[in-house]
Formats: sequence, structure tokens, C-alpha cells
Amino acid sequence: MNLKMNGRDPSGILNKTRELPDQLLKGWSIGKAMNPDIDIETYRQIVFCGMGGSAIIGDLARLILSDLSLPFLVNRGYDLPSFAGPETLIVASSYSGNTEETLSCFEQAVQKKCAVICITSGGTLQKRAAELDYPVFQLPAGYPPRTASGFGLGVLLSIFESQGSETVNEVSLNESVRFLKGLDSVWSNPENPECLPYQIASKVQGRIPLIYATEDKCQAVGYRWKTQLNENSKSQAFYVSFPEMNHNEIVGWMRHEGIESYYCQLLMIILKLPDDHFRNQMRMDLTQKLVKADGGLVIELKAEGATFLARLLYLLFLGDLMSVYLSYMYKVDPADIQHIDNLKAGLAAVK
Amino acid sequence: MNLKMNGRDPSGILNKTRELPDQLLKGWSIGKAMNPDIDIETYRQIVFCGMGGSAIIGDLARLILSDLSLPFLVNRGYDLPSFAGPETLIVASSYSGNTEETLSCFEQAVQKKCAVICITSGGTLQKRAAELDYPVFQLPAGYPPRTASGFGLGVLLSIFESQGSETVNEVSLNESVRFLKGLDSVWSNPENPECLPYQIASKVQGRIPLIYATEDKCQAVGYRWKTQLNENSKSQAFYVSFPEMNHNEIVGWMRHEGIESYYCQLLMIILKLPDDHFRNQMRMDLTQKLVKADGGLVIELKAEGATFLARLLYLLFLGDLMSVYLSYMYKVDPADIQHIDNLKAGLAAVK
Repeated sequence: MNLKMNGRDPSGILNKTRELPDQLLKGWSIGKAMNPDIDIETYRQIVFCGMGGSAIIGDLARLILSDLSLPFLVNRGYDLPSFAGPETLIVASSYSGNTEETLSCFEQAVQKKCAVICITSGGTLQKRAAELDYPVFQLPAGYPPRTASGFGLGVLLSIFESQGSETVNEVSLNESVRFLKGLDSVWSNPENPECLPYQIASKVQGRIPLIYATEDKCQAVGYRWKTQLNENSKSQAFYVSFPEMNHNEIVGWMRHEGIESYYCQLLMIILKLPDDHFRNQMRMDLTQKLVKADGGLVIELKAEGATFLARLLYLLFLGDLMSVYLSYMYKVDPADIQHIDNLKAGLAAVK
Repeated sequence: MNLKMNGRDPSGILNKTRELPDQLLKGWSIGKAMNPDIDIETYRQIVFCGMGGSAIIGDLARLILSDLSLPFLVNRGYDLPSFAGPETLIVASSYSGNTEETLSCFEQAVQKKCAVICITSGGTLQKRAAELDYPVFQLPAGYPPRTASGFGLGVLLSIFESQGSETVNEVSLNESVRFLKGLDSVWSNPENPECLPYQIASKVQGRIPLIYATEDKCQAVGYRWKTQLNENSKSQAFYVSFPEMNHNEIVGWMRHEGIESYYCQLLMIILKLPDDHFRNQMRMDLTQKLVKADGGLVIELKAEGATFLARLLYLLFLGDLMSVYLSYMYKVDPADIQHIDNLKAGLAAVK
């Protein structure tokens, strides 16, 4: 079975995805070695600029470092918010260094005299940052961005740990990495009957997965599941937050004749943390009951791990591997992102 | 045809939805009459707390008032962010005044000595605010929250207009209201061949609509389409942003055998503004081409109107009315939100 699978993954996306724990350590050491002169207390807000796989590490850091004393905003687009100025710390994150939205924000940050740090493996972003003598956290090159997220996340955690965040330190990171490696020994073999990501992929196959998690504790992981299902599996998938979904989305699960044609193709996947507000945990339980009573399909996944960081990484790693296994089931190449490449070519034709 | 439709809308959701222009004026006058002592320059950030129909007005205001000199964050959940303190202005928005997430944030704001203003029609929020002598912008009672958004939006625009925002003033609001009333004269009659919301509902019927709009200019309207489709139409629907969708979601539109079972039930709806960044407009055009080339279904809707405010309201009103017409086609009561009522009952049973 493994050999056949390898034939469907010529770029080795599975093995790159399995690097997550090692990438976290590498990113952490890159961050510590840089030791740049940043004192976040002197800023009014942090604006993290990036897209896709280079943005999600900002979302993850924002969840993990939720005790920061200033707003940490993730900005996905061409323009900085109007309030950005000398008291704003901009983090420009582009794995390739050539993401046009992030480069646009970078140049606006220069104009507005913001403080700027960069996270990249090269490209124009690295070049411009060198010209202007801005700190660059240099990531190893040669990965599809979505398989390099561990590097950037490790860098971010190391930067903000040194700024006094209490939720992450080297001990908790090392523990989480060991935990992930233990999971990898089971999860990287789909023939292992304990291989949870493979089991989930089997249930997702042929369906539209709707991922639900809490906005304040798990949003980045839920959204990562969605985007990995998109990019790796070539599947539609959506992410919606608790408790907000209880105020609207849940009504979309009320079964009636008009939506019967697609109702049974939807799959509710709930990502649950013991860290979630107890009322949100109740909401998740009640929501499942309602959907199941209407004959809807539901999977609930409870995070394991000794710390909040470990639990988030458990769910992240689970989704990453699941999306690769689903690509095998769909007989598509997980590395293939032809639509994105076509878009870039179309955009490049008109500058 | 109209008579039959009225039979399917015993609570008059269509007519309440049609009140949008008048509600905006009423909300504006409520805001101006209050004239509370707020100087936003003295704060470091605004955190808008609400859920569902009471949160979307915060998202809309954030787009419209994009020239504010400080971050305006919309917080959907039980807890305030860690940075909230005396230099934070909290807007607690709950139409009913009894939304438990918003009440939780309100009490935290009191504890953290934040500045607080409230937008509500009554309930516990009004009672607590009166006890503590906080300003309350009192909305007319008796509406399902999603049909009362005009009141709250009018209030917000009036508050921040007096704080020096240049994008909204009484003249531009009045022009937008006149424009909406002109649209209403055509759009409120589904037998009128020019009734665009009815035409769109016909295309959405039996499909899963995926709404796309730009994050920085139109996010709140795209998300409103999603939630109105959920609540009014009892339909699944999802909102995803440009340009982010070009970095992942677009791959979910790559057609292959594994997703063939649902591919033709998806409907791409793109909401486009002349205010969108020109590269995002290009992205929207290229994205459509790719999806159409794979046989995917696409509708593009271009906003009309003389100002950014008018254009946003055009698309908002279009989506609101469309979702009501779709409920008629589905033969469901647009007022019915049984799943939400069941959830609230379940939550109330365990306090």
C-alpha cells in the first residue's frame, strides 16, 4: 500500500508534512540566533502581513500567544490598515518572498515609517529588507509554503517568548515536539489500525467537510484544515467558528426538501479542546445532537496533549496528514496547485 | 404570486427586510440625539462585541469607517482579548440585550475598567448599563435581529461621523437611503422582470452558494449573504475572501473524479466593487475564467451606486431580499430558526 501511495506523491508532500516537529525546533533556533532588538511594549499594535501558508502562522501565533498586551492582527491583502504608523510593528511574512500582496504591504510600511521585521526564505522581500537594513528571519528554502509552516511558527514563538509571553517557552516547545514525534510514528503509516488521519480521510472521501472550532482558541487550526483540504486534497472545504455558527450557520443544517440534494454530502467535523470556554463545549455537544437528529453526518475530534500548545499542534498535524491521505484516495497529486499557478501566470501578464 | 408568497411569510420578514433604508435614518437620529461624551482619540483601540445579526453591524461599520486612526476589532465570543483595559472602548451590541456571549464580555469590560457603550433594544444589557450609568443607544424592539440591522448600523455611522470619519456624513447617508428606496420599488416585487434578487434566488435554488468578496472592502457584505442564506433560506452557504482564496480555496475548484458528486451543486457568487484594489478585480476575473473552464457555475454581481456607502448597501440589500425569496422557493418560513431556539433552550437548561 505504501509503495502505491508514494507513486501518487512524487514531490514527497507526506514526508515534508511529517517534518512539522523538526521544523518547529529549527524555526525556534533561527529566531533565538537572530535576537533582534524588538521591545513590543513600545508599540501600539502588531500587524502580521501574509497570505495562505505564510499567513496561517500569524493566526496560530495569535492563538498561542493570547496573553500579549497589545492587539496582534493578521492582515491578508494589498493594503495596510489606516492606523498603521511608527507605533506599529509590521511582520511581513512571505515564504517565497515574492507574494505580491505582502510586498505591497511591506512598501506601505516603509512609507509609513512602521517598524518592520521579515520572515522569508528569499525573493524580493529578502532583497528589499537587506537594502533597508530590516531584520530578516531567514527560513530554509525549497518547500511548498504549506509544508514549511513549522519553520515560521517556530520563529514567531521564539520572538514573542523573549517578549515575556508566558504561554510558550523552550520546555513546552520541546515537550510538544516529542509528543508530535510519537504521533508521527503511528500516523505516518496508513496501514496502522491506529492511524487516525487515514481513518478520517476515509470518512471525508466524496463529501464536503465543514470544519468547526472555537474562534478564540482554535480558529487557525480549523482554517488550516480547510486550506489543506483545498490545496493537498483538491477538495472543497469550509471553516466556520463557534459560538458564531450557533447564531446563523446552524440553521443551514435544518433539513428540508429544498436542500435534500446535497444534505447527505455534507460532513460536520468538530475540533474540540478542553481549553474551550465551557459554554462553547456545551454548544458543540448540543449542535451535534441537533444535526444528528436530522440525519446529518458528524465527526468530533478531541485534542490530546498535556498543554494548550501540544493540543493545538495535535489537531494541526492530524489535519495536515489527513489532507495528504485524502489526496491519495482521490488519486490526485497533493503537490499539484495548477489553478494557483495559472492565476499567478495570468496576473504576471498584466503588471 | 404575491399572495401565495405572503402565505409563506407569516411574520412579514420581507417587509421588515425592506425597512433597511428607513432603519438607517432612524438609527442615525438615535445616535445623534444621544450625543454621548466619546473622544476616540483618547483610546488605543475599539473592541466591538456581539454575535450574529448584532455583530455584522460592527463588521459593516469597520469597512465603511476604514479611515479611523485606531484599530476597530469585532469580537465574537465570551471573552475580551487580553489587551483590553482602560484605554479600550468597548461597544457591547446585543439587539435582544440577552446574548450570553455579549453579556460575558460586558461584565469583563466592567471588571477591566474599559470605556463601554451599549447598543440594544432592552434585556439584561440595558438593565446592567443603566445600573452602571453607561451610555445606551436604545433601538426599537420587536424585530428578529437580522431584520433590525439598519438601526444599529445607522447608530454606529452617526457615532463615528461625529468623531471625524470622512467617509460618511448625513448627505451621503441620505443619498444612499434614496438610492435604496428606488431599488426597493423594483426589488420588492418578484413579478417585476427587473427584480434582480428574485432572479438570483432562482439560480441559487437547490445549490450550495459560495460567496466571494474582498476582505478589505466587502467582507461584511459577503458574510451577511452567507448568514442570511442560513437563517432566512435554511440553506447552507459559505463566505470566503479575496485575495486569500487565490492561495488555497481556488484549488478546491479543480475538477476531478473524486469531487464530481458535488461539483455541479456548487455556485460561485462574486460580489465586485469598483472600490476593490485593481489587482483583486483582476483576480476575480481570472478566477471566474478558471472555474468556468472546468464547467463550474459562476454569477458575478457588480455593485451599483454613486458612493462606496451606497454600493455596499446595494449589495447588502440585494442579498437580504434574495435570501427571503429563496425561502419562498424552498417553501420554508423565513422567520423560522428552530435550531437556534433549540440550542438556546438546551443552554438555558444548564446555567
